[in-house]
Amino acid sequence: MGALYMGNKPVLKVDSKVCIVMEQMLRLLHDCGLPLKDVDFLNSDGKTMNKLLLEGKPRMTLFTGSSRVAEKLAGDLKGRIKLEDAGFDWKILGPDVDEVDYVAWVCDQDAYACSGQKCSAQSILFMHENWSRSPLIKLMSELAARRKLDDLTVGPILTFTTEAMLGHMNKLLQIPGSKILFGGEPLENHSIPSIYGAIKPTAVFVPLEEILKDENYNLVTTEIFGPFQIVTEYKDDQLPNVLNALERMHANLTAAVVSNDQLFLQEVIGNSVNGTTYAGIRARTTGAPQNHWFGPAGDPRGAGIGTPEAIKLVWSCHREIIYDVGPVPSAWQLPQPT
Amino acid sequence: MGALYMGNKPVLKVDSKVCIVMEQMLRLLHDCGLPLKDVDFLNSDGKTMNKLLLEGKPRMTLFTGSSRVAEKLAGDLKGRIKLEDAGFDWKILGPDVDEVDYVAWVCDQDAYACSGQKCSAQSILFMHENWSRSPLIKLMSELAARRKLDDLTVGPILTFTTEAMLGHMNKLLQIPGSKILFGGEPLENHSIPSIYGAIKPTAVFVPLEEILKDENYNLVTTEIFGPFQIVTEYKDDQLPNVLNALERMHANLTAAVVSNDQLFLQEVIGNSVNGTTYAGIRARTTGAPQNHWFGPAGDPRGAGIGTPEAIKLVWSCHREIIYDVGPVPSAWQLPQPT
Amino acid sequence: MGALYMGNKPVLKVDSKVCIVMEQMLRLLHDCGLPLKDVDFLNSDGKTMNKLLLEGKPRMTLFTGSSRVAEKLAGDLKGRIKLEDAGFDWKILGPDVDEVDYVAWVCDQDAYACSGQKCSAQSILFMHENWSRSPLIKLMSELAARRKLDDLTVGPILTFTTEAMLGHMNKLLQIPGSKILFGGEPLENHSIPSIYGAIKPTAVFVPLEEILKDENYNLVTTEIFGPFQIVTEYKDDQLPNVLNALERMHANLTAAVVSNDQLFLQEVIGNSVNGTTYAGIRARTTGAPQNHWFGPAGDPRGAGIGTPEAIKLVWSCHREIIYDVGPVPSAWQLPQPT
Amino acid sequence: MGALYMGNKPVLKVDSKVCIVMEQMLRLLHDCGLPLKDVDFLNSDGKTMNKLLLEGKPRMTLFTGSSRVAEKLAGDLKGRIKLEDAGFDWKILGPDVDEVDYVAWVCDQDAYACSGQKCSAQSILFMHENWSRSPLIKLMSELAARRKLDDLTVGPILTFTTEAMLGHMNKLLQIPGSKILFGGEPLENHSIPSIYGAIKPTAVFVPLEEILKDENYNLVTTEIFGPFQIVTEYKDDQLPNVLNALERMHANLTAAVVSNDQLFLQEVIGNSVNGTTYAGIRARTTGAPQNHWFGPAGDPRGAGIGTPEAIKLVWSCHREIIYDVGPVPSAWQLPQPT
Repeated sequence: MGALYMGNKPVLKVDSKVCIVMEQMLRLLHDCGLPLKDVDFLNSDGKTMNKLLLEGKPRMTLFTGSSRVAEKLAGDLKGRIKLEDAGFDWKILGPDVDEVDYVAWVCDQDAYACSGQKCSAQSILFMHENWSRSPLIKLMSELAARRKLDDLTVGPILTFTTEAMLGHMNKLLQIPGSKILFGGEPLENHSIPSIYGAIKPTAVFVPLEEILKDENYNLVTTEIFGPFQIVTEYKDDQLPNVLNALERMHANLTAAVVSNDQLFLQEVIGNSVNGTTYAGIRARTTGAPQNHWFGPAGDPRGAGIGTPEAIKLVWSCHREIIYDVGPVPSAWQLPQPT
Repeated sequence: MGALYMGNKPVLKVDSKVCIVMEQMLRLLHDCGLPLKDVDFLNSDGKTMNKLLLEGKPRMTLFTGSSRVAEKLAGDLKGRIKLEDAGFDWKILGPDVDEVDYVAWVCDQDAYACSGQKCSAQSILFMHENWSRSPLIKLMSELAARRKLDDLTVGPILTFTTEAMLGHMNKLLQIPGSKILFGGEPLENHSIPSIYGAIKPTAVFVPLEEILKDENYNLVTTEIFGPFQIVTEYKDDQLPNVLNALERMHANLTAAVVSNDQLFLQEVIGNSVNGTTYAGIRARTTGAPQNHWFGPAGDPRGAGIGTPEAIKLVWSCHREIIYDVGPVPSAWQLPQPT
Repeated sequence: MGALYMGNKPVLKVDSKVCIVMEQMLRLLHDCGLPLKDVDFLNSDGKTMNKLLLEGKPRMTLFTGSSRVAEKLAGDLKGRIKLEDAGFDWKILGPDVDEVDYVAWVCDQDAYACSGQKCSAQSILFMHENWSRSPLIKLMSELAARRKLDDLTVGPILTFTTEAMLGHMNKLLQIPGSKILFGGEPLENHSIPSIYGAIKPTAVFVPLEEILKDENYNLVTTEIFGPFQIVTEYKDDQLPNVLNALERMHANLTAAVVSNDQLFLQEVIGNSVNGTTYAGIRARTTGAPQNHWFGPAGDPRGAGIGTPEAIKLVWSCHREIIYDVGPVPSAWQLPQPT
Repeated sequence: MGALYMGNKPVLKVDSKVCIVMEQMLRLLHDCGLPLKDVDFLNSDGKTMNKLLLEGKPRMTLFTGSSRVAEKLAGDLKGRIKLEDAGFDWKILGPDVDEVDYVAWVCDQDAYACSGQKCSAQSILFMHENWSRSPLIKLMSELAARRKLDDLTVGPILTFTTEAMLGHMNKLLQIPGSKILFGGEPLENHSIPSIYGAIKPTAVFVPLEEILKDENYNLVTTEIFGPFQIVTEYKDDQLPNVLNALERMHANLTAAVVSNDQLFLQEVIGNSVNGTTYAGIRARTTGAPQNHWFGPAGDPRGAGIGTPEAIKLVWSCHREIIYDVGPVPSAWQLPQPT
C-alpha cells in the first residue's frame, strides 16, 4: 500500500505458502476501486523472481525474508534495495524490578502469541538477577500453561516440525547448566499433520557464560519460528557481557529494555542497533506496524513500514528542484567570467 | 564534515591527485580543535581501499567517483552505500525566449567556469528552435572568447589531454550535420605540460535526430571533464524525442529547465529523474552544495550533501525507540492470551 | 474536532441560527463513543457567552464571526484568541488569457455556489483588459442563467433580504460608469419568506478608478453574503492601483490570482496578505478545509483549520521540556561560581 | 535578529536602563553590513512607545517585561502580540536523592549566578523530605559563602534596594515556621550606591502549609530580581499540594524537576504549564536561549526565542498558497452548477 500511496507501480511477489491470502487482498482492493493496472502480482518461485529483478532492473526493491537471500539480492541489485532484517529478538530486564505481573504477561505474549510465529517474537530473555528472586519465571510458566489448542492460543508451526524443535532443544540442553524452565514437550491429542510442528510453549535456560562461548553462540542464537525462547541471567557487573552478546547478533529487528532506570536505558540503547527498540517497564518486543523499523540502525538499506515517515523513506525520495523564475534585476550587468 | 556532525567515526580516502588538499584541510581542523581520533585519513590506491572496505565492513560508505567503480562497490558492499551519481548534465531551453543576455551568461558559466571541471558542468544544451532565432549562440560565443589563461578563466584540464579532447570532437564532427559553433582549437602560448589538456572553450552542434541514433548516442553523451559541450535544437513536436534522450542517460546528477512556462516545466521535470534540477528562466546546472542531491531520483542509494536534511539522510538514520514507562493502570487485569 | 484531537476540553458555542445542526453532530459523536464529558455545548446569546469567557478565562478561544465582535473579544481576552478573518474575497485575472471556459465556470462556482453564502465566496473580480476581449463575461452570464430554484442552485439568503441586496446594488449603480452585467432582479415564483433574501445571481461592474475613491471604497467592498459580486477591469499599468485596493481591505480570508505568468504571480502574492491564496490559471477562491488558513498573513491571531499543521498550531503548542538525566561524568569537579 | 531573519522591518525599543548596550549592538551590526534602514531603533519611555504602537498598528509586537504591562498591551493591541512571561521560577527535587554535590551546585548557580538577575533564576525550591536528610542545604550554604564582590560572583542589584529586599525577607520571617537558611545580611565594605541593592545570597525557609494559605501566597511568590530564594519541603503525600501551589502561579517561564523517576516526572510535568521545563537529575531552571520558550503552555500569545522553530513561530507565519496551474484535462466538460 505504501508503494501505491507514493505513486509507484509495484510488482508484488509473496511467498508461495501464503500468497493466496495476498491474492484475495488484491481482489478486495480491486473491488474497492484499485485500478487493475496499478499493481502487478506475481506467483512464482524465488528463482524466477530473481531473474525478473535482474532483467527488469527496478529502481527499488523491498525484500522481506531470510537474511541469506537478502544479502544475495543486495549484491545482485547493486544495492537498489531495502531490507527487512530478520529477528532473533531480545529482551533485557533491568535491575529495577517492578510490575512483575504485567511484565510476565508481556513476556508470555511476546514469546508465545501466534505460537511465536511473528518476526518480532521474543527469542531470548536476559534477566537481571534481581528478577530471578521475583516470581517472574513462575508466573510465565503459569501463563504458558493457560495456552491450549482449543482456542488456538497454541497452534501448528508452519516452518519447523516437532522433531526439529525438540532436536534443537536437546542440543541446547547439552550445554552445561542448561535446563528446561517449562514446556519442552509435544502437544497431544491433535490432528496437526506431521509436516508442521506442534509443541508446548517452551523456555530453556542457558547460562550467560555459556552463551558467549564461540562453540555455543550460533546454536543459542538460532531463530526458531515457533513458541520457543531462551532465558538467561546476568549480574550487575555482567552487563558488558550482555551487550557483547547483542553486538554479535546479526539480525536486529526489534528489542526491549524493560526498566525505568534512565541510566540503564541509556547504556543498553546506546550500545545496541536494533531498528525498533521498546524501552520502559512496559516494554515489549512485538507491537503494531506503526512502530516498525528495520535494523540495524545505521544500515542504509534499513527502513520501516506503516508510518507516513517510513512510507516516504522507502517508497518516495527527496528530489531537489530549485525554481529561479526571476525576474533578472533591471540593474543586472554582465559579470566577469570565472 | 556531515559524517562527523552525526557522530560517526569516518575513514576518509581521497583520490591521490587531490588528497594533498584534504590532508591540509584535516590539519586545519585539528588545529581548530578536532580530536585527532575522530577521523581516520587513508592515502592509498583504490585496490587497497577496496580491500579495507571488504574486511572492515563499514555500516555505510559514501562514494563519489566513476559510475563503473560505483556499481562494483555497490555489489561488493551489498548495498551498504550511498553514491554520488556522475554528471553528463543537460540543460533545456523552453519555447519562451526571454532574458537572452542573462541566459547566455549562465550557459557560459555552467559550461566553462573552472574550465568545465565540475561534476555539475553543462554537457549538453537542448535549445528550442525559438532560441535559435535569438542572439543566444552569438552571445555564448562572445562570452567564451572573453576567457583567457592570464586570469585562469580557462586553464589546464587534469583528466583529458588536448589530443583526447580534439579527437573526441573530430569523431563528433563525422556525424552528419555536426559543426563547431565556437572553439575547437588548442590553447596557444602556454606552458601547460602535455599530460594535461589545454583547449579553448568549445561547443559542437549535433542534430537531435543523429543524437538519438544508437550508433551515435554513446559517443555524444560521453562526459568530457573539460570546457566542452554539445548543443542541439528541437522543434515543438520533438519534445518527446528530447525526453527520450534524457531517459536513456544513466548519469543523472544535475539538470536545468530554462523556462517560465509552467506546463513546459511540468512536462520536463515530470519525465526526468535528475537528483538536482534547476527550473525557471534563470536555471543553471551548477550551483552551491546547498542544492546538491544525487540522482537518479528514486534510487535508494542516492542522497545529497550540504543541507541538514542531506546530512541526516546520509550520515544518520531513523531509529524507532518507543518508551512505555507506565504506570500500569491500577485497574489493569490479566487479559486472555492470544 | 481539532480541539479534541489535541486533548483539550472545549466549550462549544454555535450561532443560534444553526446550532441545531451542531447539536445533532454532537449526539452523533456521542453515539460513536465520544465520552459525554469531553465537550461542553452551550446554547446562548453572545452576551452570555462573552460573560462566560471573561469569568472562565479559557487559555484559548477560537472565534469565527464578524470582525467587529472579533476585535472586541481580542481585547476582552487580552489576546488569548485565534480569529477566523471575514471574507471580502478577491480574484485577479492576469494578463495571460487561457482556458476561458474553465475560468468562467470557476468564477460562477466561486461567486454563486451555495447562493454565495460561503465565507470564501468571490466578492470582487479584477479582470485584466485582455480578458475583457475574451468571451469571459458572456460565459459567466450564461452560467449564471443556468441556476434555478428547482435544484437549489440558487436559494434563499439567510442574512440579507431581497430589498437590502437590491438597495445595495442601486447605491453601487449611482457610481459613474457602473452597470449591471447580469442578474440584478428578484427571484420570481417562489415561497421564500420575506425575512430571507431571493435574488438572481448578480454581477455589477464598477470602474477601478471609482472603487479607489475614498467616498466609494467602503461601499464597494461591503460583503454581501449572497449571490452578488463586483467586477472591474484594469490595464497593465494599473496593477499598482489594484494592489492598493487589496491593501486597503481589512478582511483577508481567501483570494485567487488566475495566471500562469510567474512574475505576475510573484508581484501579486508578494504584495498581498490573504491567509489562503490560490494561484494559477485554475485558481479559485473557495476550496476545501484542507486549505483553510485565516489571514491576514503575519497576524499572530490568524490560524487555520482542517490540516494536522493547523490543528496543532491552534489547539496545541510547543512546550520545551529538556531532559538531562545524566550521568554526571565521574570526572566532574565543582566549577567556580559565576 | 529573529525578526530580521524572517524579513520583517522591526522597530526596536529597549528599556532605558540598558538601551545603551543595544545601541552599541546595532552599531556593530551596521558595521558588519546591516543596511541602515532595516531596523528602526527608538529611545523613549513606555508611554511614547505605547502611543506609537496604537497609531502605527504593527502586525506583530514581541513584548518582554512586566506582566502588568503585558496584559495592558495585549488588550491595546487586540492580541497582535507575543509575550515573554515573567518568571517566579520553581524547582522541585523528587524523591530519588542522587548526585547531591552536583544538584547543590546547580541550585547555587540557578539562584545566585548574575546575582539572581536572570528572568530564569530559581525563585523557589520544593524539596522532597528525602533531600532534607541529605547534605544539600549545607552544601548550598557553603557554595553561597564562596561568592564575593571581588570577582563579581555577587554584585549590585539594579531594581531592588538592600532595604527593599531585607524588608521583604522580614515579612516572610513573620510567617510561622519560617527561618533564614543562610544569607539574609547586607554586603559590607562596598561602594555600591544606595539606589541599588547589595545583599548576600539568601535562602529563606517557609513551610509548605503556610505558603498555600491565601494570606501568605502572594507574599511568598513575589519575584525578587536578586540573589534571593524561598526553600520549602514536602512529604510524599503532599505532592498534590505542591502541584496546587504551582497551578496558582501566574508567571510560568522556566521550571525544573530534579528527578530521574519517570513516573514522578510524568506527574509533575503533566500538571504544570511552564514554557521551558528542565527534567532529570541534572535539571536546572536557567539555560541558554536555545531552550527558551515562554509559558504558560497553551497560551496563544506564548512563543520562544533563539531556535529556528521559535523564530519562525514568532516572526514568520504559515500562509497557504495553493498553485493550480493546470493543465485543464483535454476531456474536461462543463459540470452542473451547485
